[in-house]
Amino acid sequence: MLEYLDQTQLPDVEHFQRCPSYKEAAKAIETLQVRGAPLIGIFAAYAVIAHIYTLIEAEHAISLDEVLLVTERLRNTRPTAVNLFVCLERMESAARKICRKNADKETCYEYLYRTARDLLEEDLAASLAMGEHGAALLKPGSRVLTHCNAGGLATGGNGTALAVLYRAAEQGLLREVYVDETRPLLQGSRLTAWELHKNGIPVTVIVDSAAAATLKCREIDMVVVGADRIAENGDAANKIGTLGLALAAAHAGVPLYVAAPLTTFDHKLPGGNDIPIEERSAGEVVHFLGTKSAPEGVNAFNPAFDCTPASLISGYICEAGVLKPPFSEKRLQQLAGQRPREVDINTTQGYERRED
Amino acid sequence: MLEYLDQTQLPDVEHFQRCPSYKEAAKAIETLQVRGAPLIGIFAAYAVIAHIYTLIEAEHAISLDEVLLVTERLRNTRPTAVNLFVCLERMESAARKICRKNADKETCYEYLYRTARDLLEEDLAASLAMGEHGAALLKPGSRVLTHCNAGGLATGGNGTALAVLYRAAEQGLLREVYVDETRPLLQGSRLTAWELHKNGIPVTVIVDSAAAATLKCREIDMVVVGADRIAENGDAANKIGTLGLALAAAHAGVPLYVAAPLTTFDHKLPGGNDIPIEERSAGEVVHFLGTKSAPEGVNAFNPAFDCTPASLISGYICEAGVLKPPFSEKRLQQLAGQRPREVDINTTQGYERRED
Repeated sequence: MLEYLDQTQLPDVEHFQRCPSYKEAAKAIETLQVRGAPLIGIFAAYAVIAHIYTLIEAEHAISLDEVLLVTERLRNTRPTAVNLFVCLERMESAARKICRKNADKETCYEYLYRTARDLLEEDLAASLAMGEHGAALLKPGSRVLTHCNAGGLATGGNGTALAVLYRAAEQGLLREVYVDETRPLLQGSRLTAWELHKNGIPVTVIVDSAAAATLKCREIDMVVVGADRIAENGDAANKIGTLGLALAAAHAGVPLYVAAPLTTFDHKLPGGNDIPIEERSAGEVVHFLGTKSAPEGVNAFNPAFDCTPASLISGYICEAGVLKPPFSEKRLQQLAGQRPREVDINTTQGYERRED
Repeated sequence: MLEYLDQTQLPDVEHFQRCPSYKEAAKAIETLQVRGAPLIGIFAAYAVIAHIYTLIEAEHAISLDEVLLVTERLRNTRPTAVNLFVCLERMESAARKICRKNADKETCYEYLYRTARDLLEEDLAASLAMGEHGAALLKPGSRVLTHCNAGGLATGGNGTALAVLYRAAEQGLLREVYVDETRPLLQGSRLTAWELHKNGIPVTVIVDSAAAATLKCREIDMVVVGADRIAENGDAANKIGTLGLALAAAHAGVPLYVAAPLTTFDHKLPGGNDIPIEERSAGEVVHFLGTKSAPEGVNAFNPAFDCTPASLISGYICEAGVLKPPFSEKRLQQLAGQRPREVDINTTQGYERRED
């Protein structure tokens, strides 16, 4: 059965929650128990697999319709991160291909399982590569500031932005990390501070609005953040507050890098205005860890993301290197290189080759 | 006995706390039970009076040393807001003058009391005037965004930034107000939302980091904030987050005004780099309304203020009008006009005239 670390209970409780059906998986994404642009894509792919497994156990038939039922529900959880849609499309495409062949249940399951595992392995590899490319931008003794959580908790691997920091720490380049607490749900103070501290990296939490002052008075060398979707022109949607942080970084003369795998780039959207921005409940703003923080009867506005224009971004750290826009379909395909995007339907070699 | 509304308990509890000595008054300022640049100045002046009253009741002598003992303690509470020092200097200057005359206890008390009452009345008048000057900048149907609390809770009158909003609302110009919650101590969501809502003004709370997005997507017409100290060149220290908000306003093309009485202007400091910035305890950042919000062992950095360069400020709303820098000593004296700055020592007329 699918299990996940319930991120809403961190850092106090490390609770692994069992997830008996794709409906619970969808709920876990909606409630941010499972979060992070790359991770929700991979988790959704595994939720498809878990559903297929349940069907086999119950001796039900496997059909394309069953897969599409699951992907449809998972697709309607969160609108901004494109990785979710990319992963679900990969699963649907694999399901279409294998179902057309009238393969038996076990072959179907195996094929879809390998597709999901490919997604995870690609993410792990991307994370490692981003770490290398990003760490190369830092000098010894660097102070870095980050926002939200773009770490191991947000991806299949070591993270995107935090992969850079983990690699820089291994190379002895990192002096300390400043982390925006990231209201309303505190992914910075609850999650990023937790995972960095656990990994022995000195971490200092600040309130989000202290970033502009901190960049100026604490000699920060770089800001690095993740992204939920990057448009063709390089505009990047990320956790609310990233735009303000990017403006503050530009004002302080500190370079800001976005770290994201190629699955986060969406060439179909020409610019940031086209990226759908999720608006979450007012309750998240007028509460804090369950405590009411504003008077009754007061409204709240809670956009979960904002969009940072490409002009404020120094570079895009992805598995293919540190890039500059534009990110056309053709260029993204070239960057993705020769990696097989589909499991070979006739042999297991397609999958195994990747592990070489 | 001096009493104050304990602002740390708002909005849930409206508790008036008795303040038996100047030491408790100093503590109330340090713990932000009493806060707001103009208010802490006036509160400190009244704490001096309350101490003199206590001396008289106990049949102790009144001396300049007794006054200086109190002002010294009160001066060492919070370093950034200059109003505190201005008010304490006025009280010290009055004490020096009256003590030189060897006046009897009652005359001393009366003279110092009138000095404190003058400070309060000047603040009330400044608040009304700022309301008029600031509201004149708004058109019907305006949406305004503010940060922290620069309202009735922060001054002797209706506030500085919020005085503008109250007057605009009276004139039917105000559609709604967006308020940054203002971490770490939530003066926006706890105090500003509370007082605006209580006064029937539609208010929407946002997390601080959502300001940049809100300015762009919610058609905000103006940002107005208070200040704790304004240097000669117009650089303004205000609650942490104001710098980031000013950068976001500039990016969105929304004018940002600072509203502050002339007591907030400090011509002795040439620029913002000279303004001392209070750093408060890490505990405020890693807690939220008493609940721990970050893992044990993690550091926090908690500057209580930041400094916004004059280039990001569209104008300074004060009792004398809407101004542009520089704010030299001579100009500030001219702006303060012919108002008597000292109570006439020989007659009550000096005081009474002001009420005509």
